[in-house]
Amino acid sequence: MELKDKIRSIPDYPEKGVMFRDITTLLKDAEGLVDAVDQMQKKLEGLEFDLVLGPESRGFIFGMPIAYNLKKGFIPIRKKGKLPAEVVSKEYSLEYGTATIEMHMDAVKPGQKVVIVDDLLATGGTAKAIVDMVESVGAEVVSLNFLIELGFLKGRDVLEGYKVETVIHY
Amino acid sequence: MELKDKIRSIPDYPEKGVMFRDITTLLKDAEGLVDAVDQMQKKLEGLEFDLVLGPESRGFIFGMPIAYNLKKGFIPIRKKGKLPAEVVSKEYSLEYGTATIEMHMDAVKPGQKVVIVDDLLATGGTAKAIVDMVESVGAEVVSLNFLIELGFLKGRDVLEGYKVETVIHY
Repeated sequence: MELKDKIRSIPDYPEKGVMFRDITTLLKDAEGLVDAVDQMQKKLEGLEFDLVLGPESRGFIFGMPIAYNLKKGFIPIRKKGKLPAEVVSKEYSLEYGTATIEMHMDAVKPGQKVVIVDDLLATGGTAKAIVDMVESVGAEVVSLNFLIELGFLKGRDVLEGYKVETVIHY
Repeated sequence: MELKDKIRSIPDYPEKGVMFRDITTLLKDAEGLVDAVDQMQKKLEGLEFDLVLGPESRGFIFGMPIAYNLKKGFIPIRKKGKLPAEVVSKEYSLEYGTATIEMHMDAVKPGQKVVIVDDLLATGGTAKAIVDMVESVGAEVVSLNFLIELGFLKGRDVLEGYKVETVIHY
């Protein structure tokens, strides 16, 4: 099955000149959903790690079934102000302005190995911010796994030196 | 295993007098995560349905592994303005003001049977708004499944006449 055929492309969204890759058409198809998770998970075979980290909110979509299947804990990475206990934060640059992501201070322990899962590798900004947060608490990122890679945005360059795995390429 | 022991209770969050039930401590524990999903899923045994619907963003956390395990499609219910294609919307009341949720117009077909999954049944406002959206497109809600029920908020009253299943009670 070709996963790409189940992804809807929407021109000029969210702004003119951008082709938005809409995964909701893939997710509503049971076979597509299972195949997407399985193909992402396959790239983690043989890797030793403790936790899956997924950023709000589409990182939850693929991070959780992978964590469940591989019997790992799951750490939600959230936008600023959403987590109830003490957090570690990381501000990072967007095209216009900045964004801040957070995780609970006690979520990842020093020495633990983690995998970061998200739907889309675009510029790599969010992923790099998560890497920085993980390393700031003394833990290690052993792989970053995305369903879709927008190659022309060169997110891999930002993540140089890390293992980056993607399933669908544009 | 007692799932409740893995949930962290945070007093006076997000405001004074509220006891926040924090599932992040459950999710980071691999056994707790698997057990929580399994216990929610068990309550769907024998039920026939086509799709799992989960509201942004904690509904994604439990909805996706359940959809994967039971080989169903997953429909993300999102806050206003997040979905790229044509949507159906529902505005509903909060304690102060209103909120609007949306799903893609072509996500659920007339006659389909759906299950709504979320982490928490509180006042039932979001869940009822999803039920209304589903029924507005001619589909049927066969069950609403939550990990946690805050019984004192009487969300079940709002969902009277529907099958409501919960795992942990406060």
